[in-house]
Amino acid sequence: SPSLLKATVTNGIRQIILCKDRDGKCGLRLHSVNNGVFVCYVAAGSPAALAGLRFGDQILEINNVTMAGMTMDQCHAILKKAPTNGISMAVRDRPFERTVTLHKDSLGHVGFQFKDGNICGLVKDSSAARNGLLTDHQILEINTINVVGMKDKEISKVIDGSPSVVNITIIPQYIYKHMISKMSSSLFKELDRTPAV
Amino acid sequence: SPSLLKATVTNGIRQIILCKDRDGKCGLRLHSVNNGVFVCYVAAGSPAALAGLRFGDQILEINNVTMAGMTMDQCHAILKKAPTNGISMAVRDRPFERTVTLHKDSLGHVGFQFKDGNICGLVKDSSAARNGLLTDHQILEINTINVVGMKDKEISKVIDGSPSVVNITIIPQYIYKHMISKMSSSLFKELDRTPAV
Repeated sequence: SPSLLKATVTNGIRQIILCKDRDGKCGLRLHSVNNGVFVCYVAAGSPAALAGLRFGDQILEINNVTMAGMTMDQCHAILKKAPTNGISMAVRDRPFERTVTLHKDSLGHVGFQFKDGNICGLVKDSSAARNGLLTDHQILEINTINVVGMKDKEISKVIDGSPSVVNITIIPQYIYKHMISKMSSSLFKELDRTPAV
Repeated sequence: SPSLLKATVTNGIRQIILCKDRDGKCGLRLHSVNNGVFVCYVAAGSPAALAGLRFGDQILEINNVTMAGMTMDQCHAILKKAPTNGISMAVRDRPFERTVTLHKDSLGHVGFQFKDGNICGLVKDSSAARNGLLTDHQILEINTINVVGMKDKEISKVIDGSPSVVNITIIPQYIYKHMISKMSSSLFKELDRTPAV
């Protein structure tokens, strides 16, 4: 299913076409990491969300201009100058992320502790331990639902509401911290959280 | 081809069976990172090399014992105590790594600088820039040949000797530094460098 495809981090390259909304915005923010340009924010219902952009996607090209080595400000200026329609992008699927598939036990547990969305402990002989889930990694998605910036109680609810197979998308904590370092916490409220369909 | 399959980092889980050589050794060293246990050294011609273990593989289980949370010393003790034959392992394929496919230009360049195997610069509008190769990443393999611990001149020779399509396997620099932190440089000479066949 397309939902399962989106749950799996492929690291592959895809081409997308974006437009701007009536306010002239695409609804995304970018952040540079290691001379690459990455998506660190997608607004709910925005053109960026509709085009399927996700936290951690690497933008390789915008309208055939290579993004490598550009600063955040240079990228945002390119987006601002771009025409309203037909903004083309080459996108590498979330290079720093990966998905681990866990299974709930008879009590509904997958077997890890987290604080502020960061995995900080593994339960002995749990599904998380057996599948090699790693600590010091930030939880980004649970079964394709974006949980970036959610409170831990809300994240627990998403896990509780999941079926017995739980696909967790994670990113090393130090890269996550870097990517959200310029974001105000109020932005988290307007984040795209629609699951992949 | 199996060679291409091995070049691509899958993050999938595989089961392998290992034995010990006549000196009672498997020929691998392990290192713990974020409560996971990782392969940081595979000796040339060793049982570990023949079983296809590679730098950065995560060992999930040895003889049905979950490795999560174990120290390096605990893991090495488990290997030491294991019988000579039929050591079973569950292995996750290199979770911190990924492969980027580059193409040589008419001058044979792919377009990046490196120092001590660490990517430190990208050439504007090169294949490396267009494909989103990242700086501060260590080069681990070039077309499945292990280049860990090689001198930069030797790495350049491997790239020069590659066909026009160059698959480069990389890992974030900070994880690489952590994984090789306990290794003596003399070990690098006995490293398994056979390409995947």
